[in-house]
Amino acid sequence: MTGKRPTIAEIAARAGVSIGAVSYALNGRPGVSARTREHILRIANEIGWRPSAAARSLSGSRAHTVGLIIARPADTLGVEPFFMRFIAGLEGELSERRTGLLLQVVEDHLAAIGAVRLWWAERRIDGVVVTDLWAADARIPVLEQLQIPAVLAGRPRSDTRLPAVWADDAAAVVSAVDYLVALGHRRIARVAGLPALEHTTVRIAAFRAAMRGHGLGEPRVMETDYSWEAGMRATRELLSRRDRPTAITFDNDVMAAAALNVAHEMGVAVPDDLSIVAGDDSQLCFLVRPALTALSWDIPAFGVRTARVLLDMIDGRSPRSAQVASPRLVVRASTTAPPPA
Amino acid sequence: MTGKRPTIAEIAARAGVSIGAVSYALNGRPGVSARTREHILRIANEIGWRPSAAARSLSGSRAHTVGLIIARPADTLGVEPFFMRFIAGLEGELSERRTGLLLQVVEDHLAAIGAVRLWWAERRIDGVVVTDLWAADARIPVLEQLQIPAVLAGRPRSDTRLPAVWADDAAAVVSAVDYLVALGHRRIARVAGLPALEHTTVRIAAFRAAMRGHGLGEPRVMETDYSWEAGMRATRELLSRRDRPTAITFDNDVMAAAALNVAHEMGVAVPDDLSIVAGDDSQLCFLVRPALTALSWDIPAFGVRTARVLLDMIDGRSPRSAQVASPRLVVRASTTAPPPA
Repeated sequence: MTGKRPTIAEIAARAGVSIGAVSYALNGRPGVSARTREHILRIANEIGWRPSAAARSLSGSRAHTVGLIIARPADTLGVEPFFMRFIAGLEGELSERRTGLLLQVVEDHLAAIGAVRLWWAERRIDGVVVTDLWAADARIPVLEQLQIPAVLAGRPRSDTRLPAVWADDAAAVVSAVDYLVALGHRRIARVAGLPALEHTTVRIAAFRAAMRGHGLGEPRVMETDYSWEAGMRATRELLSRRDRPTAITFDNDVMAAAALNVAHEMGVAVPDDLSIVAGDDSQLCFLVRPALTALSWDIPAFGVRTARVLLDMIDGRSPRSAQVASPRLVVRASTTAPPPA
Repeated sequence: MTGKRPTIAEIAARAGVSIGAVSYALNGRPGVSARTREHILRIANEIGWRPSAAARSLSGSRAHTVGLIIARPADTLGVEPFFMRFIAGLEGELSERRTGLLLQVVEDHLAAIGAVRLWWAERRIDGVVVTDLWAADARIPVLEQLQIPAVLAGRPRSDTRLPAVWADDAAAVVSAVDYLVALGHRRIARVAGLPALEHTTVRIAAFRAAMRGHGLGEPRVMETDYSWEAGMRATRELLSRRDRPTAITFDNDVMAAAALNVAHEMGVAVPDDLSIVAGDDSQLCFLVRPALTALSWDIPAFGVRTARVLLDMIDGRSPRSAQVASPRLVVRASTTAPPPA
């Protein structure tokens, strides 16, 4: 199957001029009369001709495409609503600027680096969005070395001058602890996400600092891979302890929803015996019963802002980090005062 | 910020030869000795040079990219787990063949057609995947007219020769009805999805035929937009009827989970007073209580197969539709015999 794309030859045939004349006209060069130029441009427009991305790219202009390489096992992608909502936000801005999003899902950072190198060498992208940042991240020095316009979807870092788009998730974690302490809780545990991710460690540190600030000592923190299975295991372990927590803060929505099932199976009433706070908000949080108190933020807006910073950078403006609105505590039915000691 | 991509000039400088010699060597043309050619290729490899996609595209070869244009409001994308799992499947196959996925989210079919025309005219894509097919779909004649390699993620159609990749969802709907009837249900309703989508009408027709086949007459079918809000409204309406159904089949997972909340609010016990079957399976189905009986299928495998059919077509093989395994009924805790009449 071969395709028909409008060609310069076709325009020339329809206009009754030479291919050279069409080329002069379309490229705005002298060599054709103003009247012929207009005639040629009208026909080009009629048959839907556009300069090929390839030709523009060779001539030094842009690919009009940005890359997003997600370094996660493909089968985990459908699990967290985050990515599709982030992509929807990116798209909202990119499509307004007629820019495509080139997506690839790879297993690890090595494969991600390989994909970026290839896309960049082949001039398929003008820049990249970097997500799921690690505390020490092998992608950053490669992006810097290749001088690829890149924006980090995460906190500004001391180890790079790449711009970052971020929300103050640490402040959000503190607000959840403050609220639980105000309700009377003293034994508050945390079920965290993947320890390699920078935002996981930032949130754990914020949680520990908040607990110490309330004079509650060193709390229990469990690390997981963000899956519902790991969330259930961590919850089961926490609720099996003699000094079990009266409140647990989770690092996403999926694990908090899974925890409701563990509490049910162990005869622990939510919220009367156990308060639960979800670290992300989605429909999952209000479709389960009791509906989950959650840290809620505008993920599509985060995507829009990320795309804007990257496009500005590609346009040659100096890179500037941007902060979006912090997640806010939305209180539903999964939190209340702790049971009498 | 400007980027450094390895250039032919750089290879020439390092190899101590002319740019022309490098060009001959890299394009496999005569004009350089075998030894010089080897030397040049080694240096090109060392500095990570690759032919630009633009240059290859101009010379008539491929973009090595396929397009996926999702015609839905961007903010609904995070709601159904389907798309991210389908994309994960597409990616699984595409990345093995070093092919990128160019993604765009648009509001409607008109915008989708515009994006495909642009990408194709600019040689950014070698083909496209078409999802969310309508009964009468304006995209199909455009794809045929432009002769773009395209594969339909949906049932084979009589109005086009474009290949389709599909699962027998109609048989799955029938299996759910058969199971509910075997349990003793006679008043079974359906909460369907968007009526413009072809698969919605196919499933409704299969549902009606199955009910008639059991001598149960014309059942009640409610149409929705697949959202949890619409699912709740439809469920509330069905449960408010004097002759309310003892079982409801839903066209996705989100609406079935939402229905549990309506049943709870109205004091209708699931499954004792009402059996519920979800039309898609995801973690949502087993994180709610009672866990939902669901029609389950391998969405990533569907994505893999769709990518394969498209890549075969781009490779010039004659297009062939492919059927993947049908969804199967996974019975959990939301279905049982109806209450005594």
